[in-house]
Amino acid sequence: MNRKMVYFLIGRILLLESALLLLPLGVSLYYRDGGLVPLLITIGLSAGLGLLLSRIFRTDNQVIYAKEGFLITALAWLIVSALGALPFVISGEIPNYIDAFFETVSGFTTTGASILTDVESMSRSMLFWRSFTHWIGGMGVLVLMVAVMPNLSGRTIHVLRAEMPGPTMGKLSPKLRDTAKILYLLYIAMTALELVLLLAGGMPLFDSAIHTFGTAGTGGFSLKATSLASYSPYLQWVVATFMMLFGINFNLYFLLVMRRARSALRSEELWTYLILIFTATALICWNILPQVGHFGEAVRAAFFQVTSISSTTGFATADFDQWPTLSRMILIFLMFVGACAGSTAGGLKVSRVVLLYKTTRRELRHMLHPRAVTSIRFEGKPVDSTTLISVGTYFALYVGLFALFWFIVSFQPSSEGFHFDGVTNFSAVAACYNNIGPGLNLVGPTASYAAYNGFSKLVLSLAMLFGRLEIYPMLIFLSPSTWLKQ
Amino acid sequence: MNRKMVYFLIGRILLLESALLLLPLGVSLYYRDGGLVPLLITIGLSAGLGLLLSRIFRTDNQVIYAKEGFLITALAWLIVSALGALPFVISGEIPNYIDAFFETVSGFTTTGASILTDVESMSRSMLFWRSFTHWIGGMGVLVLMVAVMPNLSGRTIHVLRAEMPGPTMGKLSPKLRDTAKILYLLYIAMTALELVLLLAGGMPLFDSAIHTFGTAGTGGFSLKATSLASYSPYLQWVVATFMMLFGINFNLYFLLVMRRARSALRSEELWTYLILIFTATALICWNILPQVGHFGEAVRAAFFQVTSISSTTGFATADFDQWPTLSRMILIFLMFVGACAGSTAGGLKVSRVVLLYKTTRRELRHMLHPRAVTSIRFEGKPVDSTTLISVGTYFALYVGLFALFWFIVSFQPSSEGFHFDGVTNFSAVAACYNNIGPGLNLVGPTASYAAYNGFSKLVLSLAMLFGRLEIYPMLIFLSPSTWLKQ
Repeated sequence: MNRKMVYFLIGRILLLESALLLLPLGVSLYYRDGGLVPLLITIGLSAGLGLLLSRIFRTDNQVIYAKEGFLITALAWLIVSALGALPFVISGEIPNYIDAFFETVSGFTTTGASILTDVESMSRSMLFWRSFTHWIGGMGVLVLMVAVMPNLSGRTIHVLRAEMPGPTMGKLSPKLRDTAKILYLLYIAMTALELVLLLAGGMPLFDSAIHTFGTAGTGGFSLKATSLASYSPYLQWVVATFMMLFGINFNLYFLLVMRRARSALRSEELWTYLILIFTATALICWNILPQVGHFGEAVRAAFFQVTSISSTTGFATADFDQWPTLSRMILIFLMFVGACAGSTAGGLKVSRVVLLYKTTRRELRHMLHPRAVTSIRFEGKPVDSTTLISVGTYFALYVGLFALFWFIVSFQPSSEGFHFDGVTNFSAVAACYNNIGPGLNLVGPTASYAAYNGFSKLVLSLAMLFGRLEIYPMLIFLSPSTWLKQ
Repeated sequence: MNRKMVYFLIGRILLLESALLLLPLGVSLYYRDGGLVPLLITIGLSAGLGLLLSRIFRTDNQVIYAKEGFLITALAWLIVSALGALPFVISGEIPNYIDAFFETVSGFTTTGASILTDVESMSRSMLFWRSFTHWIGGMGVLVLMVAVMPNLSGRTIHVLRAEMPGPTMGKLSPKLRDTAKILYLLYIAMTALELVLLLAGGMPLFDSAIHTFGTAGTGGFSLKATSLASYSPYLQWVVATFMMLFGINFNLYFLLVMRRARSALRSEELWTYLILIFTATALICWNILPQVGHFGEAVRAAFFQVTSISSTTGFATADFDQWPTLSRMILIFLMFVGACAGSTAGGLKVSRVVLLYKTTRRELRHMLHPRAVTSIRFEGKPVDSTTLISVGTYFALYVGLFALFWFIVSFQPSSEGFHFDGVTNFSAVAACYNNIGPGLNLVGPTASYAAYNGFSKLVLSLAMLFGRLEIYPMLIFLSPSTWLKQ
């Protein structure tokens, strides 16, 4: 294993983080709030450690393999979160380090689960940093590194592949750095568009920035206790639409920009995703209409919540925990499906669900007609059995790990000693693992994760990282054989 | 589709059921209890309907295909349960038909979940019939039909394959009827051995018969509210050992009888199953020792509960719901794993879990070394990708259906209007779907399923059938396309 290169790249990531922290520093200078010193200390630490690592571990052998790719990814996300939590602790706004770590992991993994019980008392610069982590984590911190850092030859594809969600990675350009750049340019363009549309609807600049970051990364941190409920219908429609858009594979936007709209619109995953969203919206709208009373409002509330959960963002305009049974069941189902591969969203991903469904259908057909040979096609191409086995394995691992996290959290008492109910625990783990944020009952959209004890918060943080990085990087990072063997 | 043959075979099954009902009729005559008339009416109905069906649908075209095999299996189990519930209703011992149906499905599927709140007040003949369904369902009602009914040419292999648990079916003899006969002879021999050992330990004949049926079918109905807690340590050890033995693939016993012990002992599934049992016993023993106090007792309680849950029997000697967290977690894990393929037990089956584990391990290795080619071996043979995809698909379906049943049951109020807690619902569905019986909390070993409302009881009955028949027969039976297309 090329350990030098691993630590060298971690050093680079820390330098990048110190640069990114300049943005909240600017916010702190503008609003003259208490974030200045904590941010400066963190920037100093991050830059210092980054310089040290990239000096000590500078190496001529820049070749890395898959293993290093997974390791760098897991390590980078852990260290970026560990350091990113410092401003909250130093400023005293989240005095407990575990709480701050949970909040930062939740930010970078675009989960949006919060331990804050009074978000509105936070300072501007801290709120900004908290939401900015969503934006960075959405497209990926390593993708950003590849896009902006010079002198990164070597096989960085392994790093990108480990960080990009979905069963396969699409190369937009033969040069990896160009792929990373194109992705970030599209990301910035869409972010800017949403920001402008929110400003046009009368949302203050600071609020617009916060909510745009939350939407773009499909994160879901808000600056109000009521999330987006207090904003105008126009603003809610804008956010809902962008939540849906950020759940779509960015390769399709690239095709659109390249004027290849026709091939973008042929995407099977896109259509399945859209059909899921519109069917779920229609069903929930019909289901909550008697409770809401007004048709237009019911449509808006249903569409907002469906796009929010489908894209694994987690914003809310209504306390969906109070909705009828059927609606809550649909939302839990959507939590696990998630959005498209190659988007900023979490969950199993629509393409995996489609492949699982097609494999099951073929298996049934094969049971009835054992001699019939049928191949599975996806996105117009036949799918080989290696991919089908991979998807099945991913699902098995996904379910197994979910059960493990759930068990561990279920058997932990809360910080005040009582035991959480089953729905709270199940939805808390589901919401963290699928990078959504709010769950049901005690972790519902109007509540927080504050009551979980420290150990549970660490387990839930781990669940968020497993979800965002799609299991393998974390599994390889935590496996003893990775560290024992050379 | 050969509909005539489907209904003809259903007629045969009903004739078989009427014959099987003669045994509890004998018990009723001996004890002179109120079961006589209800049993006679049921025998008459079953025989009459059976004769009618086999007359009307007698056909020269006895060829059936996989589809008919699945359909016959699903239909047979439903109808046998529907009729088998009648004695309970007519005798007034379980006045509500849905309750009686739940109890009978729970019997035939060897689940052992009960709606009875006072089992000790039941009449002897009804208790006997209830437990005898375990014995019939354990090895399979269709396997019995193939073994004993003359003139069943045609492709009965499809019927056997649909009823036998596990990813593949082993043929013990080139003639199917001989395979079925060998299986039942082994089954009867082991049943007789357990009966003798229980009698030798001083258990009354009636009690011995009931508990032997419950053990052999890995069912778990007892005739005491405290299950096996009030019996002597010797009797508990006998039952525990036989629970473990009935969870082993019957093909291995056949190999033993054929003096091919060495190939039987090479079975990877057997060793994994035994290692799981002994590891779990050791862990739980260590975990409950402070609570139990006495080492010998802790070993016995742990071994009994582990074999009971692993083999999906569901007998209890202790209220394991009161055990520490770790022990309960281990038991829930064992619930899903189940025992060996080709045994009378439920659950996912050890062989499937082993295959999933090996596939995952290979996937991880493949991630790290993309060019390495490694094949998966099981039971000394390489496993082809079709089997791996099948196992993955089965797991996906298994999880998906589990979630569906769980959601439906979770959102139902109880018969008294209150809502069950999450642990009760989860463990109730897990215990029914995996054919175990008792769950945790309100459906724990000292409680019953009586409080669920009628709809939930039907859903749980369906879950038991899906579990016992391993999904596909029920899925094909319930799929509209089966009935619409010819």
